[in-house]
Amino acid sequence: MYVNYCNKMQRLFSYKSFVSGASLVVGVGVGAALVGFNTNDESRGLKSHRGLLERVPVIPIPSVDAASNLIPYQPSQAGVSKSTAAMKYGFPSLANIKTRESYVTSYDPRNRTAAWVIEQLNPETLTGSSDRKNCDFKADDSVHMYHRATNADYKGTGFDRGHLAAAANHKWSQKAMDDTFYLSNVSPQDPHMNRNAWNNLEQYCRSLTKHYLNVFVCTGPLYLPRQEQDGKLYVKYQVVGKNHVAVPTHFFKVLILEKQRGEVELRSYVMPNMPVDEKIPLERFLVPIESIERASGLLFVPNIMKKTSALQAITMGPS
Amino acid sequence: MYVNYCNKMQRLFSYKSFVSGASLVVGVGVGAALVGFNTNDESRGLKSHRGLLERVPVIPIPSVDAASNLIPYQPSQAGVSKSTAAMKYGFPSLANIKTRESYVTSYDPRNRTAAWVIEQLNPETLTGSSDRKNCDFKADDSVHMYHRATNADYKGTGFDRGHLAAAANHKWSQKAMDDTFYLSNVSPQDPHMNRNAWNNLEQYCRSLTKHYLNVFVCTGPLYLPRQEQDGKLYVKYQVVGKNHVAVPTHFFKVLILEKQRGEVELRSYVMPNMPVDEKIPLERFLVPIESIERASGLLFVPNIMKKTSALQAITMGPS
Repeated sequence: MYVNYCNKMQRLFSYKSFVSGASLVVGVGVGAALVGFNTNDESRGLKSHRGLLERVPVIPIPSVDAASNLIPYQPSQAGVSKSTAAMKYGFPSLANIKTRESYVTSYDPRNRTAAWVIEQLNPETLTGSSDRKNCDFKADDSVHMYHRATNADYKGTGFDRGHLAAAANHKWSQKAMDDTFYLSNVSPQDPHMNRNAWNNLEQYCRSLTKHYLNVFVCTGPLYLPRQEQDGKLYVKYQVVGKNHVAVPTHFFKVLILEKQRGEVELRSYVMPNMPVDEKIPLERFLVPIESIERASGLLFVPNIMKKTSALQAITMGPS
Repeated sequence: MYVNYCNKMQRLFSYKSFVSGASLVVGVGVGAALVGFNTNDESRGLKSHRGLLERVPVIPIPSVDAASNLIPYQPSQAGVSKSTAAMKYGFPSLANIKTRESYVTSYDPRNRTAAWVIEQLNPETLTGSSDRKNCDFKADDSVHMYHRATNADYKGTGFDRGHLAAAANHKWSQKAMDDTFYLSNVSPQDPHMNRNAWNNLEQYCRSLTKHYLNVFVCTGPLYLPRQEQDGKLYVKYQVVGKNHVAVPTHFFKVLILEKQRGEVELRSYVMPNMPVDEKIPLERFLVPIESIERASGLLFVPNIMKKTSALQAITMGPS
């Protein structure tokens, strides 16, 4: 695990000319954190989990819990809401939760977009006659008008209205697909990235439903700092439209993949919100989950650990 | 009311050389919003409140509610927690609420500081033998280590550890004063601003306890956009330390002032996080509450309107 992290960091540095400088900050942050973990793990509530840590390549369990599951988990069945099923591994945060037909989301009223959107994919959700031609992007009236994005905010900005929960993941019901068109499930995305590399990542998520019992996908924006010429770190992002909709610097996708025997595999990706060469293998965008947890202010691992004793975090592809 | 807003906007522009350009964005945003309000108020749920709007100079009541009060309000009494009393007018948001001896706060784990801190001031809370010499700034262990600010993060940055709920507001109990020293109640503040103009605003809040039955103070950071040379708007703020603690561009204070007969007066201030000439009268930093609600992603007015039928928003001082 430790070797994987180090390799990962080296890789992040090795293609720094492509992935933006801000990604490097994530890598550096991870390194610093791991040093702290090795020197001071007992004070961080890890002592009681030492046996578990030795047995499987898990990520440290923090002493402060993530938000637990408020709504009882129900396995996905015909006629049972997919959004309820999407909650199996809890929520990365508990702010402004909205439950939709196809996903659960936490809204960020300051940035006028979601903090995260979680959905469950399986062959059933991917099949059906729903058509995105029947869908229109629409403002989310459940958000206060002061904090709501509108279609006008995107007009003429040069950004796509990029889905967080992808429309094509929810062919099983027209209502489920319609719900992905709320602008609260949308962020301003670089058109090239949205239509190529990001689209490939979405397709890859769908393809994983052939190999895993269940695929949970959590998607959200990141606002990563980067170093400027004065040597200091700054978070900088554009806001568009009259309502100042934030343009994230990056996006994350955290895939929680269920295997046989209750084992869970975790794959977490970060992609910069800029033109991305689609020839770069998707595995190059894998990052340690910790870097997303630190940068987003969210927590994934503590909730997942409540549901499995065998979590494998994939931070690099097969070499 | 409308005239007040216009005057305010002119004033914001007239001293633009002093208050940063980002403040101007707030002024412009307010103007745009008011146009919308006048042309389309019925669709925004205002119809049923028209009688009220004609009677007193209130702010529009939005059709989507703010977060209501989760914990029953108890008037402040000897032996009763001040923090419970601080909740009378509800919360501006419901994310990551922490209740302390002297205040209630909502933590922003991405920016490693509070989203807001609310406290109740009266002659009783301002009196006592508590001494800040007995207090040390301390990391907030109730925040996950990934999202927690430490004293080391501030060291050598040139920023003060600026209190949001001020220490001197809570002389009534050493524990209450101690609790204001959690770094979750602290933001990186420009030292000149913290020790002069901002300190004057804090003292002013305390002085108001002589003239009002109760003084509720809600304080928080703002991350305001400003226009750059390319004509686009950007949010840009520094982050400091290994944990990337955000340096807000501005701070707000919303004062909810109780008068006789259930009347409530609202004074809302925004001050830039930079050296501020303390000779400038504090009333020059008054802004319409709507500008804070829009910029912060928080809502104040809907909760206040549940507790009073006579809200007077003061957006400029006596001329």
